[in-house]
Amino acid sequence: MKLYDGGRAPNPRRVRIFFAEKGVPLPELVPIDIGAREHKTEAFTRINPLQRLPVLVLDDGTALAETVAICRYVETLHPEPPLFGRDAKEQAQIEMWNRRVELGLFASVAAVFRHSHPSMAELEGQVPEWAEANRELIDDHLWLLDMQLASNAFVCGERLTIADITAGIAIDFMKPSRIPLPEQFGNIRRWHGELSSRPSWKA
Amino acid sequence: MKLYDGGRAPNPRRVRIFFAEKGVPLPELVPIDIGAREHKTEAFTRINPLQRLPVLVLDDGTALAETVAICRYVETLHPEPPLFGRDAKEQAQIEMWNRRVELGLFASVAAVFRHSHPSMAELEGQVPEWAEANRELIDDHLWLLDMQLASNAFVCGERLTIADITAGIAIDFMKPSRIPLPEQFGNIRRWHGELSSRPSWKA
Repeated sequence: MKLYDGGRAPNPRRVRIFFAEKGVPLPELVPIDIGAREHKTEAFTRINPLQRLPVLVLDDGTALAETVAICRYVETLHPEPPLFGRDAKEQAQIEMWNRRVELGLFASVAAVFRHSHPSMAELEGQVPEWAEANRELIDDHLWLLDMQLASNAFVCGERLTIADITAGIAIDFMKPSRIPLPEQFGNIRRWHGELSSRPSWKA
Repeated sequence: MKLYDGGRAPNPRRVRIFFAEKGVPLPELVPIDIGAREHKTEAFTRINPLQRLPVLVLDDGTALAETVAICRYVETLHPEPPLFGRDAKEQAQIEMWNRRVELGLFASVAAVFRHSHPSMAELEGQVPEWAEANRELIDDHLWLLDMQLASNAFVCGERLTIADITAGIAIDFMKPSRIPLPEQFGNIRRWHGELSSRPSWKA
């Protein structure tokens, strides 16, 4: 296996943290320099036509793209500790929260970054109005997460799951997107502080 | 179990079609009238703070929101036929394609609908520039799907999976979004014609 990796970008980090929380060594890394547009080359486009990172290439040549698909593959091969849940109900609740956080907070922070950060102007057709519309949604997304963390150590209860990795990376991504985390979200601050001090978070 | 249902809206349809393809009878339906803003009431907000449909409420009171989380719950309770795949590699490929279609074509069609359709002006803060940016992406999304269907009966091979349901609903959703399907995408036309004639598609 080879992992086509994109350094500090959020999705490559999600996958590397997932491997670390599983206690599974990373496969051979193939670094792709997003700043140098290496993900737009013909060679990489043959691996992922969507020109996105990361991609896990299996020994038989199968290219698995999409962060959550790669994580689920690792989960099936290495079930312990279960980061997608154990029984039907737990799995569905974790899927629900992972999607709520990914399609809500994570997507809005990414929209602000892509559509307003000067460094992205060359890579994306920026729509400044979309950055602003998403900036206005951030507090609602944070409120939902903070409420959930008021009564739970982690997003889905007493154990870390993939939903914590997605949510934690979204919070980290607020900094380069120039979105401050308001003081009032004390539960997020407590949880994110704990998350950031885990060894996996350096992955 | 009770399924809070939203009629002809795309996500409620995805879940009802999933039940039908599984051969699992629908649970008791609780119709929620989106046009009458019933999903914005205090009572429904207690069930899903995101005010979205559908929601599956289990007998113990657990509310499962998010279409794919509901489908995965049904898959775990009723594994046959497997609509999320069998082994690790197949499951990961289906997850990859379901996400590619959902975060690509489905999301862009929904963005055009929400941000340009007159009927949505009251429900959403519309950003017309976002509708236009997504309209320009539709052909790229369709091209990716058409290429995949050139060498596969269904999106992920010889059997229908959740990725076909997501992609088929996205194609259906193009009509109310006033996006024509160009003639050139012959593989999509062949596959969508077959899909639409399945008994499940009336669900």
